[in-house]
Amino acid sequence: MAAYQIDKLLAGDVRSVARAISVVEHAGDDAAELMRAVYPLTGKATVIGITGAPGAGKSSLVDKLASFYKDEGERVGIVCIDPSSPFSGGAILGDRIRMSTLGLDKNIFIRSMATRGNLGGLSRATVDAVAILDAAGYGKIIVETVGVGQDEVEIVKTADVSVVVLVPGMGDDIQAIKAGIMEIGDVFVINKADREGVLRTQKELEALLSLAHRPDMWNPPIVKTIATESKGIDDLAAAIGKYTEFSSMAYNDDIADRKTSIAKWRLLELLRERLLRDLLARGGSNEALDRLASDVAAKRIDPYTAVESLITSASAPGRSGSGPNN
Amino acid sequence: MAAYQIDKLLAGDVRSVARAISVVEHAGDDAAELMRAVYPLTGKATVIGITGAPGAGKSSLVDKLASFYKDEGERVGIVCIDPSSPFSGGAILGDRIRMSTLGLDKNIFIRSMATRGNLGGLSRATVDAVAILDAAGYGKIIVETVGVGQDEVEIVKTADVSVVVLVPGMGDDIQAIKAGIMEIGDVFVINKADREGVLRTQKELEALLSLAHRPDMWNPPIVKTIATESKGIDDLAAAIGKYTEFSSMAYNDDIADRKTSIAKWRLLELLRERLLRDLLARGGSNEALDRLASDVAAKRIDPYTAVESLITSASAPGRSGSGPNN
Repeated sequence: MAAYQIDKLLAGDVRSVARAISVVEHAGDDAAELMRAVYPLTGKATVIGITGAPGAGKSSLVDKLASFYKDEGERVGIVCIDPSSPFSGGAILGDRIRMSTLGLDKNIFIRSMATRGNLGGLSRATVDAVAILDAAGYGKIIVETVGVGQDEVEIVKTADVSVVVLVPGMGDDIQAIKAGIMEIGDVFVINKADREGVLRTQKELEALLSLAHRPDMWNPPIVKTIATESKGIDDLAAAIGKYTEFSSMAYNDDIADRKTSIAKWRLLELLRERLLRDLLARGGSNEALDRLASDVAAKRIDPYTAVESLITSASAPGRSGSGPNN
Repeated sequence: MAAYQIDKLLAGDVRSVARAISVVEHAGDDAAELMRAVYPLTGKATVIGITGAPGAGKSSLVDKLASFYKDEGERVGIVCIDPSSPFSGGAILGDRIRMSTLGLDKNIFIRSMATRGNLGGLSRATVDAVAILDAAGYGKIIVETVGVGQDEVEIVKTADVSVVVLVPGMGDDIQAIKAGIMEIGDVFVINKADREGVLRTQKELEALLSLAHRPDMWNPPIVKTIATESKGIDDLAAAIGKYTEFSSMAYNDDIADRKTSIAKWRLLELLRERLLRDLLARGGSNEALDRLASDVAAKRIDPYTAVESLITSASAPGRSGSGPNN
């Protein structure tokens, strides 16, 4: 019945993987069934989150890093989160451009995630997609987010290693993200390191990182790369490897706490989506929502009262059918 | 009882405004009561959304624009969404820096919004904060988002005018956000227009915008500014004014549809938050959530089954009180 075949999926069949990801993107009941089968088989892959401002050259960096791992004999999954997607199908376009760069290599799987409609769930779908790739035997999974939005930050935090990409000459950039940067980044990259201002950016970053320096903890290295010329990619891979080694050795309460808080975030994401879906699935709630939205837009009702009435009418027993209304 | 006084709030009392925003940030039951009082009084302000990548100089631009409006006799509210806030209190630090720039001017109200805990609701709280400022008589309300994340984009879409800020020499930047940019931006700004590459950025942007050009529609202007030197701020204000005039003249089905879809998004945000809060408020659900999160982290259960069990146990009748537990 399912659009994918679980045995083929677990054997790493590319088409089954692609279909399975579509299933979790669309968040039907089969998504839960699929994830129940997949989840116990996860945990083997190294998940690498890569984030940074637009223009930092993340895509090139990700592509080169993927090729590097592939040359080492790994199968690599890439999941991109594309904030432009809700508008004009940017994700699909992006995929095509990327595919032509990476070639149709069967050891590199690339997929852009987009929100579908109003129900949200992008973060949840992304984390599920990573789990599918993990279960399908991709040893390295790179999650790339454009932008530094709230959801994007949360997604990167679910990775095993988080890489923050900067470019030279953006002092403001560092200022803007400085509060968050120290806790997110396990590895920092200064990409486009042939540009003017690289030393200044490095010094600023070092100064920021030194504030958080602790002798017994991981102190994030700064790697310089020129992704377009494939320079520094090996250094980046080495830094990532070193961090994963460090964190596996240091398995302790801190890391268990981190894993639990990721799991909690994930449960809350799922709950939010599920509760909303359940509510809207009750007879008439979708129509009621549309009607209330026009009422709110026209200021005939305030949003809080509208939500109250939606919840009340959806939870009223026997509401769909007994009354003479409509 | 309430931490704010509604009459003082509506009279524009700064302290009451600040307290009211804290109430919606913390999302208690009094938030609903407050918003019911406030909502009918909204709709007078012009809400200006300003977005763009970190490093584009948005903060300076917003500050200068606020001063410009103030000099024209307006009261100005600024709401900043700061993605760094969940980590290290970046928002509060940011406020302090901004306050010293803008001075303690009673006609400019500035507030950074941060997520509090895991329940989300940043977008909802931001939109509520805007409504409070609107009801309190602030004629211009500027919503500034750092980053180009999903939530940030949604928030900017709720504004009356959306301004997208770019800087010269970031061809990649335009590439990265090009799919979304055309539908979001009502006005484009190239800030730091004394930098090299301004002409190229302008040409690229013009080329992108020309693709979407329609003779009967609004065609977004490109304004060049150097915010740090207060250059071009009057042009920006003029472009914003022109757009709001255009959109008020063109009040038609398109705009009604846009308002309805914003209202729907807002209702869905509220619903998601409310449903989750209701579920967790049921006796024991918070503890159950924590327990399940550790189970998921240790792979003793998959997230979907965990969510299922949370929902089932929370909706079981008479579960909180009849048993001998606790």
